[in-house]
Amino acid sequence: MNFNEQLKKIRTYEAGKPIELVVRDFGIQTKDIVKLASNENPYGCSLKVQDAVSKIISKMAMYPDDSMMNLKAALSNRFGVNEKNLIIGSGSDQVIEFLIHAKANSSSKILMNSVTFAMYEIYAAHVGATIIKTTSQEHDLEQFYELYLKEKPSIIFLCTPNNPTGDAIDAQELFEFIKKIDDDTLVVVDGAYMEYALVKDAKKEVKPKELISNFANVIYLGTFSKAYGLGGMRVGYGIADTKIINELYKLRPPFNITTLSLEAATVALDDEEFVNDSIVKSFEEMKRYEEFAKSKNIEIIESYTNFVTLCLDDLKSSTQIANLLLQKGMIVRDLSSYNLNAIRVTVGTKEQNTKFFELIAEIL
Amino acid sequence: MNFNEQLKKIRTYEAGKPIELVVRDFGIQTKDIVKLASNENPYGCSLKVQDAVSKIISKMAMYPDDSMMNLKAALSNRFGVNEKNLIIGSGSDQVIEFLIHAKANSSSKILMNSVTFAMYEIYAAHVGATIIKTTSQEHDLEQFYELYLKEKPSIIFLCTPNNPTGDAIDAQELFEFIKKIDDDTLVVVDGAYMEYALVKDAKKEVKPKELISNFANVIYLGTFSKAYGLGGMRVGYGIADTKIINELYKLRPPFNITTLSLEAATVALDDEEFVNDSIVKSFEEMKRYEEFAKSKNIEIIESYTNFVTLCLDDLKSSTQIANLLLQKGMIVRDLSSYNLNAIRVTVGTKEQNTKFFELIAEIL
Repeated sequence: MNFNEQLKKIRTYEAGKPIELVVRDFGIQTKDIVKLASNENPYGCSLKVQDAVSKIISKMAMYPDDSMMNLKAALSNRFGVNEKNLIIGSGSDQVIEFLIHAKANSSSKILMNSVTFAMYEIYAAHVGATIIKTTSQEHDLEQFYELYLKEKPSIIFLCTPNNPTGDAIDAQELFEFIKKIDDDTLVVVDGAYMEYALVKDAKKEVKPKELISNFANVIYLGTFSKAYGLGGMRVGYGIADTKIINELYKLRPPFNITTLSLEAATVALDDEEFVNDSIVKSFEEMKRYEEFAKSKNIEIIESYTNFVTLCLDDLKSSTQIANLLLQKGMIVRDLSSYNLNAIRVTVGTKEQNTKFFELIAEIL
Repeated sequence: MNFNEQLKKIRTYEAGKPIELVVRDFGIQTKDIVKLASNENPYGCSLKVQDAVSKIISKMAMYPDDSMMNLKAALSNRFGVNEKNLIIGSGSDQVIEFLIHAKANSSSKILMNSVTFAMYEIYAAHVGATIIKTTSQEHDLEQFYELYLKEKPSIIFLCTPNNPTGDAIDAQELFEFIKKIDDDTLVVVDGAYMEYALVKDAKKEVKPKELISNFANVIYLGTFSKAYGLGGMRVGYGIADTKIINELYKLRPPFNITTLSLEAATVALDDEEFVNDSIVKSFEEMKRYEEFAKSKNIEIIESYTNFVTLCLDDLKSSTQIANLLLQKGMIVRDLSSYNLNAIRVTVGTKEQNTKFFELIAEIL
């Protein structure tokens, strides 16, 4: 059977090794496995959220409220934007899918950082768009602008803080950059880790309200998967001018998040204390990674997120290090597929991080 | 801002009115609202499933096992097919999305029944494919074959039992039809309500294993949203030859169902007693609808599902009837958007159905 041409170029995406497969493949018991690979919130999720979801367990048979009335009201309140400026996705991933399918096709170009969130490229491949990348590891907005002028992309992705490196763009520089972009180019500001960045450095905070009241061609992406501790519930959102939101809505399938996810995300916005505590603890623990890296002479990228990227020297291969850790039940992210000889490690709980330092010391 | 050409033709899909909006718009209390509009399982979901999900509530922060090892093993066991013949979607809707994006584009044709599940047409519009429909209300496989010969579609959708009408194709006729279709045409057999059909009439049972061992160009779709009572958890699946599954996998985003959904669906397959009880009770209650229709001289389509379609005469408009019921807190599905002067009513619990008969008697 023949399939669409663009599928020939797509390789199947493989997510990081789940705990279930480490148990099966290495015979390690679940309790002895530590996963610091997917930047989940190591403190789990808010007890208020757990309580609220427990109370509606019997509603699993019922489709969710497809108007997402309560969640939209809560997000609207949180960001000071109108509900009509919001779209909810199954993770912010799905909003990326909507916007690429709405704006790009096989004759489009999509501009992104050399190293950035993998889903941009994956969804771009689905529509057969051409991917243009900068050469700089950090977002170099001058280079972005040069490539914008030269290539005339339909979409520009800016990921701040950036995944998988952890660095962030100054909000003011970001605004100056967007001012120079024409109205027909969609600029995506992916703030999946923004909650962390703004605690560390106020200059990095990109406020969605400010963004969309200044620019009709920008969409801000946020997620409940990181600081809000709901990675397993698949809820993200886009905030933009209604002209953009209305088009994306045409591509949104009904009931795109679960009944329990809707409740979880709505209540999560009501427990900022949990979120703030997680972030403060994460940056406290991050210091140990910085000290560790210094003591071992390993380069570390300054991170505005809940993960750190350890750049290895040429004597050690990140793939080998990640595999050796895996065999000891420690799951981290090898960045070799991003052409980096580096591993990305989620800043875990105190105990998890201690275990990481112990295990990596045995290897290095 | 300009968007892709095909978006101009897409209207935003509006799902049936959720309970939350009836509360808000008509000031009716939640406890007084009965929703018989979305064919959810009125008996909720299995207590075993509720118990299992309750136990992993604290895992909401963790991404799901993206290999879906346990769910695939359970489905493989249930249907006697290899795990490599399976793909899981966020509802079977998402598998429809994958297959349309994999096989169709703006120069493709997609053949479907005149009245059938709305998502086929919605996803077809996303890729700008041309939709070809039969004229018969029930699936007329001779007409399907004539149109197949004439139009050379890339995909043929067969929905059995059919939504929103409830009728079903004999499995043997379905097999005879597929035999005549060339290898490069993808035939989709959507069995979302199959669990109901096979209890009512064994001749309607399409066995996925038999289907895929005979045909390399067929995909069978199933869902946990109906008989399994997990409409709110968004889990469906496709079963097909690996050559098809591998291509669809290229379009599957990672983590496309939630951590709790994965557990719910896996455990649901372990409680067939709940499913069978629900189905038996549903057909028991359906008799009351048949008697009601007979007494009121309303035509009813023989249904192999958990819903009934009441065809109104020209003196009454389905939109008006549905609206009058809505104002009384009874949500049913007006089928006027399918060009039918009919309402679709989920067969609810005894109490819900009694309330339906009371309220509609006040109107008719």
